Amino acid sequence: MKSHGPILLLLILFFAVAAKAEDGYKLWLRYAPVQQGPELNRYRQLAGYITITGEGPTQAAIRREMSTALPAMLGTTPGFSSVAGAEPGIHFVLDPQAGIGYQHPWQKEQCFSVKYSEGANGGDRIIVSSPSAIGLLYGSFYLLRQMAMQIPVGQWPTITAPAIRWRMLNHWDNLNRYVERGYAGISIFNWHTLPGDTDQRYTDYARANASVGINAVALTNVNANATVLTDQYIEKVKALADIFRPYGIRVFLTARFSAPIELDKLPTADPTDAQVAAWWQQKAAAIYKAIPDFGGFLVKANSEGQPGPQNYGRNHADGANMMARAVAPFGGIVIWRAFVYSNETPEDRFKQAYNEFVPLDGKFDSNVVIQVKNGPIDFQPREPFHPLFGALPHTQTAMEFQLTQEYLGFATHLVYLAPMFREVLDADTYRPQQGSTVANVITGKSYAYNHTVMAGVANIGNDINWCGHPFAQANWYLLGRLAWNPAANAETIAREWIQQTLTQDAGAINTISKIMLGSHEAVVNYMTPLGLHHIMGNGHHYGPAPWFNSAPREDWNCTYFHRADAKGIGFDRTSTGSNAIAQYATYWQRQWESVGTTDTRYLLWFHHVPWNYTLANGRTLWDQMGVQYQQGVDAVAAMQKQWESVAASVDTQQHQKVSRLLSIQLSEAKWWRDACLLYFQPFSGNPYPKGAAPPLQSLDYYKNLRFPNAPGNGQ
Amino acid sequence: MKSHGPILLLLILFFAVAAKAEDGYKLWLRYAPVQQGPELNRYRQLAGYITITGEGPTQAAIRREMSTALPAMLGTTPGFSSVAGAEPGIHFVLDPQAGIGYQHPWQKEQCFSVKYSEGANGGDRIIVSSPSAIGLLYGSFYLLRQMAMQIPVGQWPTITAPAIRWRMLNHWDNLNRYVERGYAGISIFNWHTLPGDTDQRYTDYARANASVGINAVALTNVNANATVLTDQYIEKVKALADIFRPYGIRVFLTARFSAPIELDKLPTADPTDAQVAAWWQQKAAAIYKAIPDFGGFLVKANSEGQPGPQNYGRNHADGANMMARAVAPFGGIVIWRAFVYSNETPEDRFKQAYNEFVPLDGKFDSNVVIQVKNGPIDFQPREPFHPLFGALPHTQTAMEFQLTQEYLGFATHLVYLAPMFREVLDADTYRPQQGSTVANVITGKSYAYNHTVMAGVANIGNDINWCGHPFAQANWYLLGRLAWNPAANAETIAREWIQQTLTQDAGAINTISKIMLGSHEAVVNYMTPLGLHHIMGNGHHYGPAPWFNSAPREDWNCTYFHRADAKGIGFDRTSTGSNAIAQYATYWQRQWESVGTTDTRYLLWFHHVPWNYTLANGRTLWDQMGVQYQQGVDAVAAMQKQWESVAASVDTQQHQKVSRLLSIQLSEAKWWRDACLLYFQPFSGNPYPKGAAPPLQSLDYYKNLRFPNAPGNGQ
Repeated sequence: MKSHGPILLLLILFFAVAAKAEDGYKLWLRYAPVQQGPELNRYRQLAGYITITGEGPTQAAIRREMSTALPAMLGTTPGFSSVAGAEPGIHFVLDPQAGIGYQHPWQKEQCFSVKYSEGANGGDRIIVSSPSAIGLLYGSFYLLRQMAMQIPVGQWPTITAPAIRWRMLNHWDNLNRYVERGYAGISIFNWHTLPGDTDQRYTDYARANASVGINAVALTNVNANATVLTDQYIEKVKALADIFRPYGIRVFLTARFSAPIELDKLPTADPTDAQVAAWWQQKAAAIYKAIPDFGGFLVKANSEGQPGPQNYGRNHADGANMMARAVAPFGGIVIWRAFVYSNETPEDRFKQAYNEFVPLDGKFDSNVVIQVKNGPIDFQPREPFHPLFGALPHTQTAMEFQLTQEYLGFATHLVYLAPMFREVLDADTYRPQQGSTVANVITGKSYAYNHTVMAGVANIGNDINWCGHPFAQANWYLLGRLAWNPAANAETIAREWIQQTLTQDAGAINTISKIMLGSHEAVVNYMTPLGLHHIMGNGHHYGPAPWFNSAPREDWNCTYFHRADAKGIGFDRTSTGSNAIAQYATYWQRQWESVGTTDTRYLLWFHHVPWNYTLANGRTLWDQMGVQYQQGVDAVAAMQKQWESVAASVDTQQHQKVSRLLSIQLSEAKWWRDACLLYFQPFSGNPYPKGAAPPLQSLDYYKNLRFPNAPGNGQ
Repeated sequence: MKSHGPILLLLILFFAVAAKAEDGYKLWLRYAPVQQGPELNRYRQLAGYITITGEGPTQAAIRREMSTALPAMLGTTPGFSSVAGAEPGIHFVLDPQAGIGYQHPWQKEQCFSVKYSEGANGGDRIIVSSPSAIGLLYGSFYLLRQMAMQIPVGQWPTITAPAIRWRMLNHWDNLNRYVERGYAGISIFNWHTLPGDTDQRYTDYARANASVGINAVALTNVNANATVLTDQYIEKVKALADIFRPYGIRVFLTARFSAPIELDKLPTADPTDAQVAAWWQQKAAAIYKAIPDFGGFLVKANSEGQPGPQNYGRNHADGANMMARAVAPFGGIVIWRAFVYSNETPEDRFKQAYNEFVPLDGKFDSNVVIQVKNGPIDFQPREPFHPLFGALPHTQTAMEFQLTQEYLGFATHLVYLAPMFREVLDADTYRPQQGSTVANVITGKSYAYNHTVMAGVANIGNDINWCGHPFAQANWYLLGRLAWNPAANAETIAREWIQQTLTQDAGAINTISKIMLGSHEAVVNYMTPLGLHHIMGNGHHYGPAPWFNSAPREDWNCTYFHRADAKGIGFDRTSTGSNAIAQYATYWQRQWESVGTTDTRYLLWFHHVPWNYTLANGRTLWDQMGVQYQQGVDAVAAMQKQWESVAASVDTQQHQKVSRLLSIQLSEAKWWRDACLLYFQPFSGNPYPKGAAPPLQSLDYYKNLRFPNAPGNGQ
């Protein structure tokens, strides 16, 4: 009898090792074995002969990635060859012509194409071309993604370039590693052990970013600490930049406007002072000496107590241009945040950014970008698009999304942000005319911007799985994919991510995709339906607190935003109120001026609506609130059931983690529903809404909850 | 031709998966494949038939551990059976008689024996017996360790019980997850997501502890926050206790003495106040209702600003007994720390704990333990043993070691603490007579203690590899092994750990063992040779700062401790000085009264020694300082070379991490050497010592270094 011993033993060994529980560290670069199928042998054949033009650190990164990925996915060791002949295989070719047809030089440089032909002996031959090694790297991740998704080789050909120049993460990470609004541990950047300990995690972070086309990272909190600009820290930043460079990632730092005073005892930080300008020029020179491809500065100034040019009677353009001129000789840019609101002005906070920046349009240097949050207040579960989009024809306007879920359940709620981001990107600003969507503005199609930026406030920490919630990884993934192609479909991106990260089972992919696509509307419903906003706990922003009204400034109070009284609820921003809608194009002014023509999703953003106002569906506003709060809760319960149904198709440890988090999410959804309806009910003069399940606790119970150690809120 | 395709494919698959880089998460429970050898088949046969008496959560834990470990180590799936017959295999047997011969009930309960016999058909038969399921769990980890170390089955038989009742980790973890003196990220205890998210990490932490016999954990910082005693947090603690229970681990909390005032507005926390006592009784009852096996309280009182009984004119016994009576009905204990020093008393800090506690000997309840740091000051690189050991015949005295390297290079220096711990444990207190070593005191041999404790201040954080430095894991391992058997040999424990964690290569084991065993003497030499102490940076304790003399209290200044002046250096604690040596037995008083009879390792702990005093080796003190600082640096350089020599035998990612950290250690060793010698040299009136390499920077350079974001120091 023929012995099967060795095979059996190896089988056992393989499954013993392969079947171990997953901790999520590998993200979407998990490189799970490709299932046996018609394509597997073609992939294996391709992997057997790989050539890469040129020698450099990026080429080495491609080779390392293929060497990690292909054995894991295909069970075959890739064969590397130096000559790109006519053989079947994968050929990465540096080709200066590959970018022809793209408008911008940076697009030409970062694009790649994938072409298919039959090889000399009839096998598949894949040519990845780009003018740059970075383009080839992007192409390599593209190929690995095709394999992970088991897409037939014949469908691989493509030509693609990023639509946005700077695809960026903003880390709100302090130098002591505390992450403001961080819910996944502390900063991955261990400043104490840098530059000496260049931990593997930095490389894996760069790999993950490059795999989705992210090419810029601001390492430090926008509430900035000048220490990062000292020589001691520049050396640490350089160590990170050196790791990131082969992956095409450029490093930015946040610049504290008063740094010249704090670090070198200058008497002023006035941007028109020659000594101050010289200080920044010297600082820029020192940084570029260490980091020749340094990206530039990200600045929060004159907002929430941060210093800025207004401290000296100057404006944002004075401040931004002064810094921009310091980095301009080296090719750097300054990203200046539009999230400003004055401590002194009693104006509707909604309007302040527009009021400050529109008068400055055209006054900013060509290497300044104004970075605008998606909505006018602050990353609420749903906001109308920010009125600055489209309002700055002569000023490069960038998008700031928030990936970390400051207002969306921290890292314990499953919320896939693509539908929310799509809603904003697809919004038509009607500026200068119909069809000028937010996406068209930020990609420089509506107005000719040279520097375009899509930034995501990072949801990354030192948790083993990076983001706390396994599904939060999808939002990091999303940022990269959406910045590359702002027209990308939410479901397409979800399915890509699922297939690479969780499972290859077709039914499970469908189910998980449904969970993800419905998750944003669920959280809006159980937190802030119908255009409610800013009714969360004070400071930490955890849980509901519509009753909160004791902040040191009026526009930090929840009552300021929901304005519930005997007459109704909501913030009148029409001409009878703050008239914030006047900041939008005429089309939107007309839409939003009256309750009847306002999309109910934004209703209470713009109107103070009577409790018994009858909506188009025949329900009163109050009844509809009850229905939607309950819909949010029901949606989470449904997500739970759907998730349980895919248990067999997903790694057990990952599955259990998500199950536990969904339980937390469900109980917190009920908390939001109960606390908000109980609080609003007396104002409404109506009985508790029939559409909602009875509350589980009393209003007093909810009001008395305290969370002294909630994460992410200062320290 | 016969096809080898399937075998080859599986081989490739296996190595692709198995060869991946290690991140250190698995600790010593890595379960690497056992090398082919004569024992492998015997192990496999044993694994094929496993029986476990009884059904319970601990038995389930044994089964889970075997199911994880054996396939990984042996490439074979364990066969579990319910009937412990005469078959070859491993049989875990609950046996009430197994503990006969042990003195203490808790020893009888936690012991296990391993017996060998030939099975029915000639195979090996291993019987693990214990009166308790926890004993069987300890036995299962013992067996897995034997296999990992590839010890022949015939050498497995043993009978063993712990020598210390409470083998304990003290976490200095705040509720906001900041770890005081933590250098490996933030707390693994995520209070915000508890009790809902019972993360896998909690179970893995329990497994690691149980595998080395650790059976108690204090979850919270001794600088305590009363919030942990609220109902909200007790529910969170319960979730952890429920996870730890099957692993034989009991949970302790730190109790803030003023909690009755802070939580429930009592007018006082006076321990003699009936209302206060009742408050603690009710609090204990509430905790035990949720956690029936709650261990008790760990208390830091009247030390470094913490509240305590002295605030009300009461003493430590009044305070400790009041709390002890609250937990006594439930079987709980109170561990009261002896690390006290007064803000007001100008007395030598060395003496204060002894002065406060010796008069109280015999006044503590039977469920109170006094926990004493290994040395009289504060976890310095080397300290003489604490004079309280042996000085409290009627008071249960426990050992507090520090695993986190507050004064030993944080998580970037490789320092294996066993030689240091051995030095203390082996020290003869001469109380009540010769032979009463510290080990004998804390194991209750010198005086009949019922509750014995060895605690280690944990070096654990949420870094992927738990401890920051891969070798810091060895100190966690050490604590458990040494608490089980305080006579254990430093090298034995090192080799066990290396074999389970890093490599099976005999040469590499020898080399790494040498690195570890010499590492403590190296750090003493490059930081604080010859009995220097407390000359590190202020606050963060990072790096050298012998010049520091601007603390708000004198005994926080480095100059207070080294007392360098034109005459000499060192702290005179003889009868001509603070006379701290009078706190020791006569033997030690005689040894330490004169310079000539004082072990040079402790020289400057006890004497102010002239710079040109000639030591037994013929060198002057000053020259010897130069020699030893240089020896410390040279030792690190040698460690580097040794480590490079084992590169082929250790996982590459782990190896590179340690290499980088050794580079940091070497540069910081030079920093210590240069800064200290430059600072002391003018006092000495001598030229720079010939024995040391020339300094790399000026004294001013070192004095001007600032570390505003050094970890572990407050927040």
